[in-house]
Amino acid sequence: MSRLVVTLLALMGTLSGSVVTQSGGNATVPYPEGFRSWAHVKSALISERHPDFARSGGFRHIYANPAALAGYRTGTFPEGSIIVVDWVEGQDTNGSFTEAARTRVDVMVKDKTRYAATKGWGFERFNGNSQTERTVTAADSQCVACHSGPNATDLVFSKLRP
Amino acid sequence: MSRLVVTLLALMGTLSGSVVTQSGGNATVPYPEGFRSWAHVKSALISERHPDFARSGGFRHIYANPAALAGYRTGTFPEGSIIVVDWVEGQDTNGSFTEAARTRVDVMVKDKTRYAATKGWGFERFNGNSQTERTVTAADSQCVACHSGPNATDLVFSKLRP
Repeated sequence: MSRLVVTLLALMGTLSGSVVTQSGGNATVPYPEGFRSWAHVKSALISERHPDFARSGGFRHIYANPAALAGYRTGTFPEGSIIVVDWVEGQDTNGSFTEAARTRVDVMVKDKTRYAATKGWGFERFNGNSQTERTVTAADSQCVACHSGPNATDLVFSKLRP
Repeated sequence: MSRLVVTLLALMGTLSGSVVTQSGGNATVPYPEGFRSWAHVKSALISERHPDFARSGGFRHIYANPAALAGYRTGTFPEGSIIVVDWVEGQDTNGSFTEAARTRVDVMVKDKTRYAATKGWGFERFNGNSQTERTVTAADSQCVACHSGPNATDLVFSKLRP
């Protein structure tokens, strides 16, 4: 299917309110416009000394829109909750880490109808600073499987830092 | 002077709108209620390998209220701008750093009248999670001197991460 056809189908889906399905079985997740002014849930950093560095090195900042922030506080994420993980390289200068380039933006959106096939949450990963380069191809295996584990609350792993 | 008298004087100052001066020459800065839901400006981390670890180790998260966020974007911080540096211990597990206890909260508040003696900004540092244990005793030497340097814009060092 050509990119044009995919785009037209996506547009039609958006206009009609129906669910557009990606190749991986996940309905399209919009780029989280304006997330950098949302509430900051918590952060972590993986340095070169850690075995996960190649895959997940750098700062990992989590943000919540107002609905998701309420969800962190009450334990129940309302429809419209959006959670973002902003991945940013950590520049290591003698053990002092500062932020460098963004490597990717992960998004979770709660919509029980639109994302019924993936347990009520839509998942996407945007590459670097791109708002269009999507890298999730199979949300079930790449996202939902792990997020359904016992350490998550309604598929959310993180807790709000006080 | 007893704590009661200090409290009463502070209260009178608040009620009359006049400036209450601490021993260090800095007008009182209120605790930044609700700053954890403000916009996140940027972060850094100092690990044990760095010479500043004993003094400044851990995560350093900077937050801006809506006025200060506009200031970061325009380059001019309006009256009422509040900037917070939230200092949080970094728990190091094989090079993976997660957030532990808060060690202190630094605050800058822009009010050209109230903080005229300290170049239009009020400065304070609250110890740990306390909203009352203030540790700035001489804002001029402890805060303003360094914040007046050439690397700051209107006494603000940080830049908003995109």
